[in-house]
Amino acid sequence: MMNANANPVVDLSTQLSAELAAKTMPAGALGELIPLAHRIGMILNTVRPEILEPSMIVFVADHGIAKSGVSAFPQEVTWQMVSNFLHGGAAVSVFARCHGFALQIVDCGVAHEFEPRLKALSSFSDRKIALGTADCSLGQAMSSEQCLAAIQIGRDLIRQQNGNTLMFGEMGIGNTSIASLLTAILTKQPIEVVVGRGTGVDDAGLARKINVLKRSLVAHSALLVAPSLTPSETFELDPHRLLCAVGGFEIAAMVGAFLEAKASGKLVIVDGFIVTAALLVAQRIDPRVVDQCVFAHESEEPGHRFALAHFEARTVLRMGLRLGEGTGAALALPMVRAAAAMLRDMATFESAAVAGKSA
Amino acid sequence: MMNANANPVVDLSTQLSAELAAKTMPAGALGELIPLAHRIGMILNTVRPEILEPSMIVFVADHGIAKSGVSAFPQEVTWQMVSNFLHGGAAVSVFARCHGFALQIVDCGVAHEFEPRLKALSSFSDRKIALGTADCSLGQAMSSEQCLAAIQIGRDLIRQQNGNTLMFGEMGIGNTSIASLLTAILTKQPIEVVVGRGTGVDDAGLARKINVLKRSLVAHSALLVAPSLTPSETFELDPHRLLCAVGGFEIAAMVGAFLEAKASGKLVIVDGFIVTAALLVAQRIDPRVVDQCVFAHESEEPGHRFALAHFEARTVLRMGLRLGEGTGAALALPMVRAAAAMLRDMATFESAAVAGKSA
Repeated sequence: MMNANANPVVDLSTQLSAELAAKTMPAGALGELIPLAHRIGMILNTVRPEILEPSMIVFVADHGIAKSGVSAFPQEVTWQMVSNFLHGGAAVSVFARCHGFALQIVDCGVAHEFEPRLKALSSFSDRKIALGTADCSLGQAMSSEQCLAAIQIGRDLIRQQNGNTLMFGEMGIGNTSIASLLTAILTKQPIEVVVGRGTGVDDAGLARKINVLKRSLVAHSALLVAPSLTPSETFELDPHRLLCAVGGFEIAAMVGAFLEAKASGKLVIVDGFIVTAALLVAQRIDPRVVDQCVFAHESEEPGHRFALAHFEARTVLRMGLRLGEGTGAALALPMVRAAAAMLRDMATFESAAVAGKSA
Repeated sequence: MMNANANPVVDLSTQLSAELAAKTMPAGALGELIPLAHRIGMILNTVRPEILEPSMIVFVADHGIAKSGVSAFPQEVTWQMVSNFLHGGAAVSVFARCHGFALQIVDCGVAHEFEPRLKALSSFSDRKIALGTADCSLGQAMSSEQCLAAIQIGRDLIRQQNGNTLMFGEMGIGNTSIASLLTAILTKQPIEVVVGRGTGVDDAGLARKINVLKRSLVAHSALLVAPSLTPSETFELDPHRLLCAVGGFEIAAMVGAFLEAKASGKLVIVDGFIVTAALLVAQRIDPRVVDQCVFAHESEEPGHRFALAHFEARTVLRMGLRLGEGTGAALALPMVRAAAAMLRDMATFESAAVAGKSA
């Protein structure tokens, strides 16, 4: 065991590597589970990590841009899916029971008034800011006050979590459009290469989606270029102004959740395209938020690749998922648990009295 | 729902596809989980599958070929790892606790007499055939009687399982050599491209391993070529004679386990290189054994790729594993559970009253 006093950060990393190298297996034989275990140890700040009371928070809101025909599904699917989440029939609900984690659904701004019976459920949080954002292809999606309120939702919810491991999910018809805008802007990619079919628009729908998003970029061009800068000056995009421009409430709430996860030292298993777009924004506010994260999976949505490349992320799974709801994080949770358990509980060659590699 | 009377096999497949297409998600949004769920439904013969009492049986034996210096680790690691399995310190033991499955260790022929204290454990089965096989690079690895006894071990153990889901693991210094011989012969590949570094031999060790395996192929060439055949005749390799030639006891036991899994309609999550080599042999005895299988992961051992290609297998995970012990199957189990739960419990658009895709 290394001396843990001198430089605690460097030493924990070295300790973790030494601990993993001593486990009763040929060097590297557990493949990608080994760097995953190392990262979990770094995030939870221990060589004996344990995944405690993992919880999934699904942030839900509607988007004005949905009225511009960017989705294959009608907007009422947002509230109908909230009901499906709460009744246990959605994919993420099934995975919550199957893999044993708490599931909380948060209305950040759904364009529907839920019936009192649903609102009374302990797994539902009513934090509705408005009945959806405004259409960002025509102007600001939300006011500065709404944006700060949405960020506060995420912060408040994370402060209420007892466990050390978080997953964020999302639902909101139109939100792959918003995530595409954020990802294109923050990874400096053309919108055409970032946009995908979301819930499954056809070729005509995809062309319409791209046109609406181009119109959105034009509407907010004042935010994206700083005309008076000399070449030697750098232009810093204001992440709050960007959020106000495009939305949405659930994405801003996840930004707050990431910020609070960093503040409270919790591990976040990052789901797919929408959640990673929120992380791109959160990183602009506090670059250290990424230190808390493991990346669950590589989505089929093309924009996710650019976001993952931006974070130089190695994902736990690659299974062609593109559902959202936090389902990718939910499916990666058992792997995170296994990696932590391996680091915590697996014997070393010395402790198990197993002979090492021959000279 | 389709009419289930006419042709039950065709109809179950159609029913499963219809059921999966009706789930509350955009078409195909759960990626590889969807064909996995379909396959599980076919294997367990229901549109409402449930993974019940999954169990892992780790088959352990020694190999005479280990004395020829084909492994990076000394032979005593085999029995030392049995002790590690039983004391809960091995990777597969950790995963058993983490993911909730029963773990049974079977001595099929370890070159060591275990102490009575270990042999008394309920998780240990003493079915030792001999203190390891003979060196197959010099002659027959096992007699016909030993081979049949080893196959019977697997059959007996599967008959004792209450659950509907099985995983097989293995341990035996030298067994990547045996798996390489079986895979090269049964997938008709040159031994050089199939052989890998196993537990981590260096370049000199790899060259030695290849030489020993070439010598083994020469020693058993009478088995592999039928000199008197005319070009129009096909030569059927006898799988029992092949097993007798190269071994090993744990591989023959897994052949029996696969055969019995088919007979009893149980699902098998197939681990890595060694287990898949046993499946190659089992398939020669009963081609239908493959119908019971889902493939857990693609091992780093190069031979595994050829075996997977032979089965046209789509693996659940690709994580660079190469440990054996059944660890790949153990890590894939939560995904199998999630796929089954999704098929069984997820709501349909109709049952959840969620609007479908817009016209």
